[in-house]
Amino acid sequence: MILLEERIRKDGEVKPGQVLKVNSFLNHQMDIELFSLMAKEWKRLFSGEKITKILTVEASGIGLACLCAQEFHVPAVFAKKNLTNNLADSVYWARVVSYTHHREYNIIVEKSFLKPEDHILIIDDFLANGSALLGLIGMVEASGATLAGAGIAIEKGFQPGGELVRQKGVRVESLAIIENMDDFGNISFR
Amino acid sequence: MILLEERIRKDGEVKPGQVLKVNSFLNHQMDIELFSLMAKEWKRLFSGEKITKILTVEASGIGLACLCAQEFHVPAVFAKKNLTNNLADSVYWARVVSYTHHREYNIIVEKSFLKPEDHILIIDDFLANGSALLGLIGMVEASGATLAGAGIAIEKGFQPGGELVRQKGVRVESLAIIENMDDFGNISFR
Repeated sequence: MILLEERIRKDGEVKPGQVLKVNSFLNHQMDIELFSLMAKEWKRLFSGEKITKILTVEASGIGLACLCAQEFHVPAVFAKKNLTNNLADSVYWARVVSYTHHREYNIIVEKSFLKPEDHILIIDDFLANGSALLGLIGMVEASGATLAGAGIAIEKGFQPGGELVRQKGVRVESLAIIENMDDFGNISFR
Repeated sequence: MILLEERIRKDGEVKPGQVLKVNSFLNHQMDIELFSLMAKEWKRLFSGEKITKILTVEASGIGLACLCAQEFHVPAVFAKKNLTNNLADSVYWARVVSYTHHREYNIIVEKSFLKPEDHILIIDDFLANGSALLGLIGMVEASGATLAGAGIAIEKGFQPGGELVRQKGVRVESLAIIENMDDFGNISFR
């Protein structure tokens, strides 16, 4: 999506450790007009699919998921970060590793919100190592729901997550795929 | 807002400790059609005000803030929960107490996203003891921005937050104010 690539080039900042900071429009301050256009693009890409629910993970996926849910006229569910070690029987859960923040945590979704008859589109802001996305996919699989695919805002194409998820047969539609970032702030797209 | 009150009566669950569980439509699964109507109501209530930015706090305020930002055609910013004890000079921060989860944490907003020329509308899902809202208000004050007011989905009228914030002269528009909840699940609205 050219508009998103242009915005990343304009307002994204490359930080040491191949971190891309896009918090002026994506994951701290949110440009809702841009989100709406991104949601319309996912709607176009997945227009042939039956979708009954959008699934994301807190916090920075929520805005994109809500705008997308609006396009599909379905509810959105966000997986919660579980900061306690208590896991109720009533939740699906997955262990997620954040390489950026050097943390591990569980994400949970109440079982009543993922049903075998659901057709799920996963939406998230970033795909890098794929830990969060694989966790969400695992919860959809555990619920018996049908996974329509995943819509990602920015995929780091030089990290393994995208390939890992596509190898599982999951359709991934990333609106911008970064091929390379260097320490001088240059960003090239696939 | 009658529609929200009806939904709380229908799908809300009163839990011990005066906890109201509304996670089937508000803060885990999100009914986006309802969110859109709530956003339009805040737009109507604050239509006389200049608003340049919506401010909320992760995670469950984000969806409402995004839909509201869409109505006002402005960006939304969410304060982040800061799980480390490091606070950079480049952020506004506030200490928040969660009575429901028996936790304390800092919330932060990058200074570059709150400017003296901004007119801020704060949006959040719940107002009970007011800790999060007072924290957000403090950050707006520190930035020199103008605070237009706060739009709250559900205010627990029997807890002190609403009064504390209104006593500061802040306009608070809660779409549903709970007067009383009992252990039998009965909910009355103001």
